[in-house]
Amino acid sequence: MLGREYDQVCSIARTLEVLGERWTLLIIRDVFNRRRRFEQIQENLGIARNVLTARLAWLVEQEILEKRRYRERPPRFEYFLTEKGLDLWPVMVSLLHWGDRHLAAGGGPPIVIRHKECGGPVDDRRICERCGAHLGVREATVDDGPGAPPEWLPRAA
Amino acid sequence: MLGREYDQVCSIARTLEVLGERWTLLIIRDVFNRRRRFEQIQENLGIARNVLTARLAWLVEQEILEKRRYRERPPRFEYFLTEKGLDLWPVMVSLLHWGDRHLAAGGGPPIVIRHKECGGPVDDRRICERCGAHLGVREATVDDGPGAPPEWLPRAA
Repeated sequence: MLGREYDQVCSIARTLEVLGERWTLLIIRDVFNRRRRFEQIQENLGIARNVLTARLAWLVEQEILEKRRYRERPPRFEYFLTEKGLDLWPVMVSLLHWGDRHLAAGGGPPIVIRHKECGGPVDDRRICERCGAHLGVREATVDDGPGAPPEWLPRAA
Repeated sequence: MLGREYDQVCSIARTLEVLGERWTLLIIRDVFNRRRRFEQIQENLGIARNVLTARLAWLVEQEILEKRRYRERPPRFEYFLTEKGLDLWPVMVSLLHWGDRHLAAGGGPPIVIRHKECGGPVDDRRICERCGAHLGVREATVDDGPGAPPEWLPRAA
């Protein structure tokens, strides 16, 4: 899709060939946030249904998401991140921190990432600011931040 | 540009509102790699001139790039990253490492990021693997990796 003269020998360019469109990264964000069903993602993003169908199929083809059936008749699916998809966590964290720093509205970050074990906030190197652990995606969780809007319901503990 | 129902209270979504288009991130990558002039970026990306003009103006408006004049008659400009733009380095590093890991062709990463001071490779937390320093963008440099194509000219040391 990029121009022929385009220098393809670049891992950033290759990555953006796969991900380089805003909806794709927002869909991945939603699955990270456990919105696993078509209707949940569609409602959250307000994305056209045909566009979402195409993007989900693309992400499955790229082995970033996998489909699992949760109902037989009619067949219904949920989407999960594969290991390749979970490896995008550093990309999500770095986008989140940049936005927190430069684009957050008054009140501070809407969400904060926390180390599950000790509850400390996680910095933009994915290091726990409280205990110093270098974290993987499975060791972190998301909590409301000071900029969370009042209409958000409390998160389950 | 996103749908009205779209949940805007998210620093990832806000970031992608600014950056969420492949060319934008590739232009930023080029400026990180010291391609500072319109012609250099245009030639490297093979992007249409009117598209590049619009994207550069947008990035200046967003205070990610700044223009500096390097010739008076006719006026010619170079583009530099602002502090806000330099803060995108973690995003670049995380995209690069994901691509290296999941999309690199045979031969390994085309480029490697190194700690200027000790020459050690930099991991995806921006930590030097040799000396353990936590690096900022000004402490790192880029070197050819094992997957660099033979047609690349040697980099200046």
